Amino acid sequence: MEFSELMKKRRSVNFFDPEKPVEQGVLEKIIEEASLTPSGFNLQPWNLLVVRSPEVKKRLRKIAWDQPKIEDAPVVLVLLADKDGWRPEHPVMEKAWQDQIDLGYTKPEMRSWFDGAARQLFDSEKGSLIFAVRNSCFFGMSLMLAVANAGLDSHPISGFDHEALVAELEVPDNFVVPMMLVVGHFDEKQTLGPAKWRKSYDEIVRQEL
Amino acid sequence: MEFSELMKKRRSVNFFDPEKPVEQGVLEKIIEEASLTPSGFNLQPWNLLVVRSPEVKKRLRKIAWDQPKIEDAPVVLVLLADKDGWRPEHPVMEKAWQDQIDLGYTKPEMRSWFDGAARQLFDSEKGSLIFAVRNSCFFGMSLMLAVANAGLDSHPISGFDHEALVAELEVPDNFVVPMMLVVGHFDEKQTLGPAKWRKSYDEIVRQEL
Repeated sequence: MEFSELMKKRRSVNFFDPEKPVEQGVLEKIIEEASLTPSGFNLQPWNLLVVRSPEVKKRLRKIAWDQPKIEDAPVVLVLLADKDGWRPEHPVMEKAWQDQIDLGYTKPEMRSWFDGAARQLFDSEKGSLIFAVRNSCFFGMSLMLAVANAGLDSHPISGFDHEALVAELEVPDNFVVPMMLVVGHFDEKQTLGPAKWRKSYDEIVRQEL
Repeated sequence: MEFSELMKKRRSVNFFDPEKPVEQGVLEKIIEEASLTPSGFNLQPWNLLVVRSPEVKKRLRKIAWDQPKIEDAPVVLVLLADKDGWRPEHPVMEKAWQDQIDLGYTKPEMRSWFDGAARQLFDSEKGSLIFAVRNSCFFGMSLMLAVANAGLDSHPISGFDHEALVAELEVPDNFVVPMMLVVGHFDEKQTLGPAKWRKSYDEIVRQEL
């Protein structure tokens, strides 16, 4: 679909048809399309848990204000943002670095400069959190658009008990979970409400310098 | 442009043509298109500084590892993520709330529940930071795609001295700056290098549950 139309068509829907499945092949295509998202130094510090199990979805619903859509939608994607994604010896970091050498974007002798820069920017609780959430949420937005482009619907969920979710799903400490994304088909028995208000240019732009 | 093509066409380019301007009308259309981005409770905690001044760009270049593209590109967008965007009496919060009442999505008597839920989720240093960066970076990704869809090029920049930037531009304390986005036209005298490696489905998905 044309991008401008897609931006209007993508809506966060509240009602999903539990009878309409999300084919695995379609989901894989969506995720690989979203993988083209840019990230700082191409570190791609995002991972997903793909939840289809009714039993796991029931537990997720409990820790997310009992929202029925979590059980109704066939798939819940749990976005994991990797606070360690910039560290030397992280496998993705090493692969991204080697790729940039292979493509001629950097040289092996730049490595110590890079490691120092990354430490300076990200080696703190706040720095690593911003690094992880920023890049993962670029990916999260791409996911929402790729879902809509595949003719499916979604709803991002940030209203959940983070501590409980991490415990339930045994998410390792290096990850923070900025959102879950419920994916499925809008329940055609329901009516889609009108689009909500959005800020105008003048409300977004604080200052022109 | 068709979304799947756009995802492939959007590249973070390093060389901008200083002679090719970004028309104000085009920029406004890009920003308004990106404004369709979803956010938790529709709170849209994003603002921008639009920098065109050569003198301000020179100062930004200094605090961002001396990257020439900051001066070469006609526009630098500084993304501000509002950590207070969920607080009662914040004008955007109040407008979003009233809009949801007007559209029938909520009722006035839900307000104290909502304020309590928001406080529980966001009223901490970490909670407000994740809230602000998550939603603003959804918007940031939409911006990058809207820029590409308008036939322009961009480069997201996270390698800068945050403290210095906040001081230089007198950014109020309620904002954190997750990125700058350099916007312009690729310098056709340069050659665009090959696309970098991206993680596959299996590298992104940690677990299927």
